[in-house]
Amino acid sequence: MKHCIIFCAAGFDGLLEPIPADALLIAADGGLRHAEALGLRPHVILGDFDSLGYVPADSRVFPVEKDDTDAMLAVRLGLERGCGRFLFYGAMDGPRLDHTVANFQTLGYLATHGARGALVGRDYIAAVLKDETLSFPADAAGIFSLFCLGGAAEVSIEGLHYPLEHGILTPDFPLGVSNHFTGKPAKITVHEGLVLALWDRSNGLGVRGC
Amino acid sequence: MKHCIIFCAAGFDGLLEPIPADALLIAADGGLRHAEALGLRPHVILGDFDSLGYVPADSRVFPVEKDDTDAMLAVRLGLERGCGRFLFYGAMDGPRLDHTVANFQTLGYLATHGARGALVGRDYIAAVLKDETLSFPADAAGIFSLFCLGGAAEVSIEGLHYPLEHGILTPDFPLGVSNHFTGKPAKITVHEGLVLALWDRSNGLGVRGC
Repeated sequence: MKHCIIFCAAGFDGLLEPIPADALLIAADGGLRHAEALGLRPHVILGDFDSLGYVPADSRVFPVEKDDTDAMLAVRLGLERGCGRFLFYGAMDGPRLDHTVANFQTLGYLATHGARGALVGRDYIAAVLKDETLSFPADAAGIFSLFCLGGAAEVSIEGLHYPLEHGILTPDFPLGVSNHFTGKPAKITVHEGLVLALWDRSNGLGVRGC
Repeated sequence: MKHCIIFCAAGFDGLLEPIPADALLIAADGGLRHAEALGLRPHVILGDFDSLGYVPADSRVFPVEKDDTDAMLAVRLGLERGCGRFLFYGAMDGPRLDHTVANFQTLGYLATHGARGALVGRDYIAAVLKDETLSFPADAAGIFSLFCLGGAAEVSIEGLHYPLEHGILTPDFPLGVSNHFTGKPAKITVHEGLVLALWDRSNGLGVRGC
């Protein structure tokens, strides 16, 4: 499955894992700074460049007035190029909380379009799960929170402090917040709906499979 | 409509408006520090006190292991005491992004239980709208973002840069992010669904009415 690595403009604390040689690297607007700091040359630089403040050479310039965020533009391009796994850096730790929420929904877009993605933040990783199981080994530690991203969702949780068997998450009650790892392998299954998961970055991406 | 003011443990940058004399003041766990810094004595101090680190005198102590967050405990108490308008301080700017998302859903709980609430953060105000109109005067400035909190929502937007007439917001596309005020009065109506709104704190709470 081809990887797409998207650099956005919010806070960045280094790569979580090496970038595969055949991955598509996209810098979205001010995310170019993070890529350059790593000595990387993105395959595509795109955006409206309102946060970068200048238009880099060989970039794809979009108008400020558009329905897509710069991250969504990058997602559309990655999907067009056949990518199935998307990692976002600089997409969760900015001053703009609304952009963080928008990026959660961008993960939702990937989930409803047959792809998988995660935001890698300074402290947390965020993923949106749909019809899938996410597993962590016994040495995972820290918090693990689950929220339905859209309407009610049905989930099962094994190995975390608060287990759940075909439980229902609703958008008006945060039942899944502040769960945590316990030294046992953990398995989170989303049977129905879109579910936003947030966990400590130190645990990596987990293993996703059905 | 009786007000409930809830102090939570995350970042706090002062009151947005004076507290009515008959308001119910609740400190949720570490939020007590914010109330005390203002010289306020909350009517109720509650929580599991894992963030405060000690149990204050005359407080209501709940076990750490519970389905309700401390903010949700405060909401239940406020509703029991007949409050219809809830303001949360210290509920959006902490290091725990999962708590911020949980507090968005706690606003959803208020909306589905016939009450209204807002999180007052350092930079932003968050509210969840349901079957209502939110209005701002012509001098409102800065960003205004809308997201459906649950399943698809139907909204109309007048007076912002990107208007919308009975448009549909879905959980897998951030159509409503980064809208902004334009020097005209603005009116946002939620016809269907639960909608999370985020705007600049400098604009105050807006005027909510049906």
